[in-house]
Amino acid sequence: MTGIVVREIERTARAVIDGLAQCGVATVHEAQGRIGLLGHYMRPIYPGARIAGSAVTISAPPGDNWMIHVAIEQLRDGDMLVLAPTSPCFDGYFGDLLATSAQARGCRGLVIEAGVRDVRDLTAMNFPVWSKAVSAQGTVKATLGSVNVPIVCAGAAIAPGDVIVADDDGVCVVRRADAADVLAKAQAREANEESKRKRLAAGELGLDIYDMRGKLEAMGLRYV
Amino acid sequence: MTGIVVREIERTARAVIDGLAQCGVATVHEAQGRIGLLGHYMRPIYPGARIAGSAVTISAPPGDNWMIHVAIEQLRDGDMLVLAPTSPCFDGYFGDLLATSAQARGCRGLVIEAGVRDVRDLTAMNFPVWSKAVSAQGTVKATLGSVNVPIVCAGAAIAPGDVIVADDDGVCVVRRADAADVLAKAQAREANEESKRKRLAAGELGLDIYDMRGKLEAMGLRYV
Amino acid sequence: MTGIVVREIERTARAVIDGLAQCGVATVHEAQGRIGLLGHYMRPIYPGARIAGSAVTISAPPGDNWMIHVAIEQLRDGDMLVLAPTSPCFDGYFGDLLATSAQARGCRGLVIEAGVRDVRDLTAMNFPVWSKAVSAQGTVKATLGSVNVPIVCAGAAIAPGDVIVADDDGVCVVRRADAADVLAKAQAREANEESKRKRLAAGELGLDIYDMRGKLEAMGLRYV
Amino acid sequence: MTGIVVREIERTARAVIDGLAQCGVATVHEAQGRIGLLGHYMRPIYPGARIAGSAVTISAPPGDNWMIHVAIEQLRDGDMLVLAPTSPCFDGYFGDLLATSAQARGCRGLVIEAGVRDVRDLTAMNFPVWSKAVSAQGTVKATLGSVNVPIVCAGAAIAPGDVIVADDDGVCVVRRADAADVLAKAQAREANEESKRKRLAAGELGLDIYDMRGKLEAMGLRYV
Amino acid sequence: MTGIVVREIERTARAVIDGLAQCGVATVHEAQGRIGLLGHYMRPIYPGARIAGSAVTISAPPGDNWMIHVAIEQLRDGDMLVLAPTSPCFDGYFGDLLATSAQARGCRGLVIEAGVRDVRDLTAMNFPVWSKAVSAQGTVKATLGSVNVPIVCAGAAIAPGDVIVADDDGVCVVRRADAADVLAKAQAREANEESKRKRLAAGELGLDIYDMRGKLEAMGLRYV
Amino acid sequence: MTGIVVREIERTARAVIDGLAQCGVATVHEAQGRIGLLGHYMRPIYPGARIAGSAVTISAPPGDNWMIHVAIEQLRDGDMLVLAPTSPCFDGYFGDLLATSAQARGCRGLVIEAGVRDVRDLTAMNFPVWSKAVSAQGTVKATLGSVNVPIVCAGAAIAPGDVIVADDDGVCVVRRADAADVLAKAQAREANEESKRKRLAAGELGLDIYDMRGKLEAMGLRYV
Repeated sequence: MTGIVVREIERTARAVIDGLAQCGVATVHEAQGRIGLLGHYMRPIYPGARIAGSAVTISAPPGDNWMIHVAIEQLRDGDMLVLAPTSPCFDGYFGDLLATSAQARGCRGLVIEAGVRDVRDLTAMNFPVWSKAVSAQGTVKATLGSVNVPIVCAGAAIAPGDVIVADDDGVCVVRRADAADVLAKAQAREANEESKRKRLAAGELGLDIYDMRGKLEAMGLRYV
Repeated sequence: MTGIVVREIERTARAVIDGLAQCGVATVHEAQGRIGLLGHYMRPIYPGARIAGSAVTISAPPGDNWMIHVAIEQLRDGDMLVLAPTSPCFDGYFGDLLATSAQARGCRGLVIEAGVRDVRDLTAMNFPVWSKAVSAQGTVKATLGSVNVPIVCAGAAIAPGDVIVADDDGVCVVRRADAADVLAKAQAREANEESKRKRLAAGELGLDIYDMRGKLEAMGLRYV
Repeated sequence: MTGIVVREIERTARAVIDGLAQCGVATVHEAQGRIGLLGHYMRPIYPGARIAGSAVTISAPPGDNWMIHVAIEQLRDGDMLVLAPTSPCFDGYFGDLLATSAQARGCRGLVIEAGVRDVRDLTAMNFPVWSKAVSAQGTVKATLGSVNVPIVCAGAAIAPGDVIVADDDGVCVVRRADAADVLAKAQAREANEESKRKRLAAGELGLDIYDMRGKLEAMGLRYV
Repeated sequence: MTGIVVREIERTARAVIDGLAQCGVATVHEAQGRIGLLGHYMRPIYPGARIAGSAVTISAPPGDNWMIHVAIEQLRDGDMLVLAPTSPCFDGYFGDLLATSAQARGCRGLVIEAGVRDVRDLTAMNFPVWSKAVSAQGTVKATLGSVNVPIVCAGAAIAPGDVIVADDDGVCVVRRADAADVLAKAQAREANEESKRKRLAAGELGLDIYDMRGKLEAMGLRYV
Repeated sequence: MTGIVVREIERTARAVIDGLAQCGVATVHEAQGRIGLLGHYMRPIYPGARIAGSAVTISAPPGDNWMIHVAIEQLRDGDMLVLAPTSPCFDGYFGDLLATSAQARGCRGLVIEAGVRDVRDLTAMNFPVWSKAVSAQGTVKATLGSVNVPIVCAGAAIAPGDVIVADDDGVCVVRRADAADVLAKAQAREANEESKRKRLAAGELGLDIYDMRGKLEAMGLRYV
Repeated sequence: MTGIVVREIERTARAVIDGLAQCGVATVHEAQGRIGLLGHYMRPIYPGARIAGSAVTISAPPGDNWMIHVAIEQLRDGDMLVLAPTSPCFDGYFGDLLATSAQARGCRGLVIEAGVRDVRDLTAMNFPVWSKAVSAQGTVKATLGSVNVPIVCAGAAIAPGDVIVADDDGVCVVRRADAADVLAKAQAREANEESKRKRLAAGELGLDIYDMRGKLEAMGLRYV
């Protein structure tokens, strides 16, 4: 099952991807029914990035980054690299040279359930990474993995071509088939939140806006 | 024991609270005898905030943020929200809408032994949070908890109305009854440190300033 | 075996140390054969510092920072303090007063497999620290340790006078005897990387630059 | 606030304590409203022990077990030792000599949010311990702590004289004032569970016994 | 996407399932190309169990075990329950009453990426569980999840009806479609290992049996 | 620096090694001044083993167990294998076939800062292992490491030929040059403990036996 590179994958329309990026992780995650979130230990190497892209997936052995070179050839403009090691690993699979190559091919960022290095350079390049660790630990190129196969990354099942949304709150995956629908729901959610925000800022309480008092009383809440 | 909201709590004089904020966590913690510190895994979502406030406490079920709405009604200007889940949880209980509501009622920040989300927005709003995790994971509103009851948060016992001091070094609780006394000790400590800082900056050694050489020799320290 | 302070240690030429700092952790680590890295949980308290120095080592009991005062007297311009507790500890051994004293003696920074505090002040002082934790937890001065003895810090064996290189990617130790040789290899590596970076930025693939296609095919990689 | 030993503490009637032991941790925890549980990382050093006792509490510095000697003098028949370090610690505070001494004074076991050692001997002595770690790491006797003061141990607030219940599922604290009432509720719960167990063993479903089908349907559960 | 119960799932022939159980986790995992392993933190509550069964999957909210009651109705003889919470949770979702019910319907065991309790009773009942934690922490029945939908449990994607193999080494999932083929490979592997074991026991070296010396020399291994 | 196998290493006299085994980890660790302990996360796969042996060290890449085959050839009767990966790894490097081979050559056990598998077989074979994890995760044979070079394992520096002592309390290393001296101190310690144990069992207090009351009072301990 390893040693496979899938060349042709379906991607989502750019407008949908960019719309999802604008909504951000928390909103997209709620809009699709509170699913798709990667583990909270996946953190950005610098604050402020908010992006989305089509997943080019990598299944790689622990401490071996050979398949990243293979994956970069499969990148198209607007893609994101998503790497899951086949056993837990914190090594620095990815640094500024690979980022230079990926960026040259239109890659928007990397999500990796392992380590990353050269973070000062990556920050200067504006190449965002969400990872489990920062580590200078080098890797080898000795064993095959696969590219563009289904993976589980940080607890989430990801298929090649799924949309990855990532920002300061973490990383979320949206199934390709659901992407347009999720975008519509996320945008509706945002519009609704905007009106709520104004009322809350004016001092109204969520207890009243969301009409919670009766239900809380029925559940037995007591004020003393 | 759950499903209780205590409306009236005692608070500390604003001048004392603000004085403690100015001293900062490390000094306050030392001044009160090295007690009251919350676990070091409680980290700020952005650097630079140094605040204090009266604790409005929340005991909440895992993955359920209903009680935050209840707690916000109990906030007064200068308060801080402090949430402990009843079992370990990393979910994102709190985001920009709740922060807008809390800030509208004078809340200075949140301490939560769980997750927080919308951290980009919270940073822009200048609403500081100290948490165990950043996570977009949504929560439900299905089960009661309590507000303004004694809690244990990140290993520290906290009563409603206790003073919470928080900065880049972490979070410390000061018993309400001790607050004025602790402030006096903390300010004395600061004054004393200032003179030490100057001598150390001039090249004097702590070994001499604190007169340690004799004791070290008596303990058996050998220079070779 | 405790209670020892070694006064005279060998150091490396300043030019070599500064050259290693300029290369950075990832490059130095690779140049010396992927060894010497401290655990990836050793993180800088603020981003952007890239330094190197001669190690003045401290072996300290858990929760006891007395030996730091002893070590500071042994510092010379260009040194770094490196502290390993004798059992795992997260306490805040080091703060702004000790940093003031160390900086006055030419110390470039601290590497500590424990906690640090006053991070806002340390950041303002431009005194970099790599630690396992930030914690305001105070320490005592009751038990002896040793200074300038061999230690294991965050999984790496470190001898006094070894060169410590630290930046946003973590911390690496270079044996004093190897330092000049490692610098030469690191600089060669940097020169080589520079030409690669240009080709990758222009869109060439690592698969071609590093001539990997044949080996991958021989290993059985299949494109589908 | 440290350096205090409280000699006289209130204890609970032996029959109540022994009744709680018989019910076990899970039942007691449920009976008192799902509160009082210590963190799940508190594990027994050998399986099969199920005990309860009155807490003699110890607040101890990291890596310093001096106060255990002080606490042992305060033990009465039927007590348990409960130790919380003032900052996180994994050291082996307690071994077979201290267990011999404690057992000689009627102590039923130890709960310690730190490490324990000599576990082979403790097992042979039938002296149960619930701890965060097993570690041979030795400790010193250099700094004071306190005995029989309120502590927070593994996330639970514990007062001297509270009842500690411990078994293979973990550790639970019952407030002394609540102990008789909690015992009554726990025993009622056990009686009720026994009848349920028989029906479930006979193949009846919880869905029917607890009459859940209507509520699940109302919540929107769909069978497909 | 939640609130779904799939009644009809495909299962694998009993003989194949039982054959996989006999081979054990390590052999099955190797036989299918080193895939399918759940995270190593999934540990048995008692040693010695070695089982396999068809997965009846449960996706459950944090701290809410309602769906287990729903899932038990879907069990057939030879099945295993597999539960993944929708966000990380250590609570004790499952105890002796649920085990009694599941066992009455032919369930062979439970795999749960959360906590379990009543482990003394479960051990006495010979009902094996592989879990992330043992915890007495109770759960509620307030929010829907789903049964027999695809889940990710401890990092592995699991579909209803997949074969779960579990023993002291951990837990492995085998795709239903691959089960017969994997069994054949696992049995071949076992046969091969048996002959190797004899030669190794007689003192022959793996270096010779597997003919490694030449390759090691070619890679540059030096004996000094 | 990798790809080295040192054939000739110095070992300690068998009587010294066996004497250290009999004393056990906690006593040996204390006898040599509270040094040499490996991290407490190194746990035995089954209880009750208490052994010692001369270290045959292995430095291995993450997820690659090739060097274990090389190391087994270097084993002599009474040795122990000690493996440290070059970056953190939980994979199952070692199972029943390798244990069969090692045992055939007189190996007494394995200490590995990574994972182990086939633990049921290893238990049946009476081949003890202390590891960071149990994991069925397979490894490859693709990259060189080294055998009988100095390593850092679980935080302790270990040289080939050092004495490894391991029991239920963990693992300790004794420098070869110190072994006879440490044994003498450990045996003296044991003799001393035996008399203390009798007095403590008879109800005497450590406070009196160790004459602590005066010092505690001088430090300020107050009984209230």
